[in-house]
Amino acid sequence: MRGAVMHAPGDVRIEERADPRILEPTDAIVRTSATCVCGTDMWAYRGADKSEGPRPMGHEYVGVVEQVGGAVRNIEVGDFVVGSFFASDNTCESCRAGYQSHCVHRVPMGSIGAQAELVRVPLADGTLVATPGAPEAALVPSLLAASDVLGTGWFAAGAAEAGPGKTVAVVGDGAVGLLAVLAARQRGAERVIAFSRHRARQALARRFGATDIVEERGDAGVARIKKLTGGYGAHSVIEAVGTRESMRQAIGATRPGGHVGYVGVAHDVQLDGRELFFSGVHLHGGPAPVRRFLPELIQLIWDRTIDPGAVFDLTLPLDQAAEGYQAMDERRATKVLLTV
Amino acid sequence: MRGAVMHAPGDVRIEERADPRILEPTDAIVRTSATCVCGTDMWAYRGADKSEGPRPMGHEYVGVVEQVGGAVRNIEVGDFVVGSFFASDNTCESCRAGYQSHCVHRVPMGSIGAQAELVRVPLADGTLVATPGAPEAALVPSLLAASDVLGTGWFAAGAAEAGPGKTVAVVGDGAVGLLAVLAARQRGAERVIAFSRHRARQALARRFGATDIVEERGDAGVARIKKLTGGYGAHSVIEAVGTRESMRQAIGATRPGGHVGYVGVAHDVQLDGRELFFSGVHLHGGPAPVRRFLPELIQLIWDRTIDPGAVFDLTLPLDQAAEGYQAMDERRATKVLLTV
Repeated sequence: MRGAVMHAPGDVRIEERADPRILEPTDAIVRTSATCVCGTDMWAYRGADKSEGPRPMGHEYVGVVEQVGGAVRNIEVGDFVVGSFFASDNTCESCRAGYQSHCVHRVPMGSIGAQAELVRVPLADGTLVATPGAPEAALVPSLLAASDVLGTGWFAAGAAEAGPGKTVAVVGDGAVGLLAVLAARQRGAERVIAFSRHRARQALARRFGATDIVEERGDAGVARIKKLTGGYGAHSVIEAVGTRESMRQAIGATRPGGHVGYVGVAHDVQLDGRELFFSGVHLHGGPAPVRRFLPELIQLIWDRTIDPGAVFDLTLPLDQAAEGYQAMDERRATKVLLTV
Repeated sequence: MRGAVMHAPGDVRIEERADPRILEPTDAIVRTSATCVCGTDMWAYRGADKSEGPRPMGHEYVGVVEQVGGAVRNIEVGDFVVGSFFASDNTCESCRAGYQSHCVHRVPMGSIGAQAELVRVPLADGTLVATPGAPEAALVPSLLAASDVLGTGWFAAGAAEAGPGKTVAVVGDGAVGLLAVLAARQRGAERVIAFSRHRARQALARRFGATDIVEERGDAGVARIKKLTGGYGAHSVIEAVGTRESMRQAIGATRPGGHVGYVGVAHDVQLDGRELFFSGVHLHGGPAPVRRFLPELIQLIWDRTIDPGAVFDLTLPLDQAAEGYQAMDERRATKVLLTV
């Protein structure tokens, strides 16, 4: 089969890889319909994450089950399924508490590589969620978004306790930040303020329900949020970048007792304990337990209540994955869908 | 009147200070029955917090209202009252959300100095809570504990979401940590693990409801908690120290999705963003909004349901405050009550 392999920063190639086989009786093999390039793939692509030797890429996927192991009970050959970036058993204490991304048996799908024609999915019963039927082509991008960026934005909005009567600010105008805007509005937030300086992303934020756009960053951005909220700060702030500056901006923009939901994968972030202490905020985040939200998200997509697939602004065949990486690196694309 | 003044690290004196007067119509003057020395006073006493020139000390107090300003409505001369370490209006958005320690008009009582015969309390209506009547002498230590250490432990236990079915670990065996043990049990926690190497404090932790004592610290302490919780970590961890090591220990001992309530005033704490991200915990804390809990805590004390005053293991007259500071500095005393 064909699949994406990163040989070095900036060097992603589509190559012939061995077809995956069932290794454990709990595995399934999925023939991908679509996969995509993630903002977190950019860390390795830009050399910010160290990566040894050639490695398979991608952790977002939807597709049709082609084969299942002998112990798989809930998923059948022919099902159209959505999974997320961690395979999880969905039965351990962490999973039952809704933290499948911390499953004691978790397997990062990035280590398997989902930017490929076929993907082996461990712990298939716990990991995969089948759609009500074969989806129309128009729904595929949205279902694919549920695999990570929508699920991550959804988790962040929940961690930030976005809801009725709340003013929510979103730091980061990548796919996750934009879908966190959508999530905050779906959860009933009254006012959603998106930080963005990028015209097309501002427009998408508004389409997803942002009521205000703030172009200032850092201390100026914090001051602007304070001004918009009677001096108190937002009730809920979502952080979807992962730098020291974005975390400071998120915490600074939150009122005492308010909630910060952070999902930007932390890179060189050191938090000042004293600043955090006197902020009085709640802080929650980390790798999103997307599996917790998949049934609900699939239903919302199936019912055409939400259209998260709009976040894909470039679609390429899998063979042109390299061009997709480059477009995201240069910020020419927010999120690249790869058809298989 | 007599009051405690710190001239330099290690140098606390009881001196004649000017009697406080009503400065604002919202002020009250309280004649203190008892006051005490706080663990946070030790930061300045040891020179870890910079302090310029002589300054009044103390922020914990109970006593009888001697005078009120013209705008005070809820508090009357003769009331026995409990206040906390921030005066707060109890009407702004922060106060109404239960975050009186972040009141937009807050005044730190430490800047006024409560280790004294008389204390001016700003925003008296918002700050002071009257007891149902004049308390028996035996209740005074417990009411005084409500002023800070009990209220702070109570907040921490709430921030850590200690409750039925939960395993709670407490980092720090000072007065706040010990009373956080009591708070966790009062909130219905199933198992409360106290970290302590100090015999007398272990005994007090058990009296307050600790079910387990762990003597290991740091990584070894974390490993011990994991072992006691099937590998997952505690559901709830309370941090009541304020160092980098204690925060790391608290976060490390918490399961993914669990809650850390931290109230140790952060000193030179830098949190590693990546470690925090992948821990998946909730983090909440800061200066405790003790005012939120005072009515409930006073009632529990009045009804003899809880006995937090047991945390005072040395009682001295105000004139011997210097000896009280020294005893706490040398860890000969957990918490020193000063009678006035």
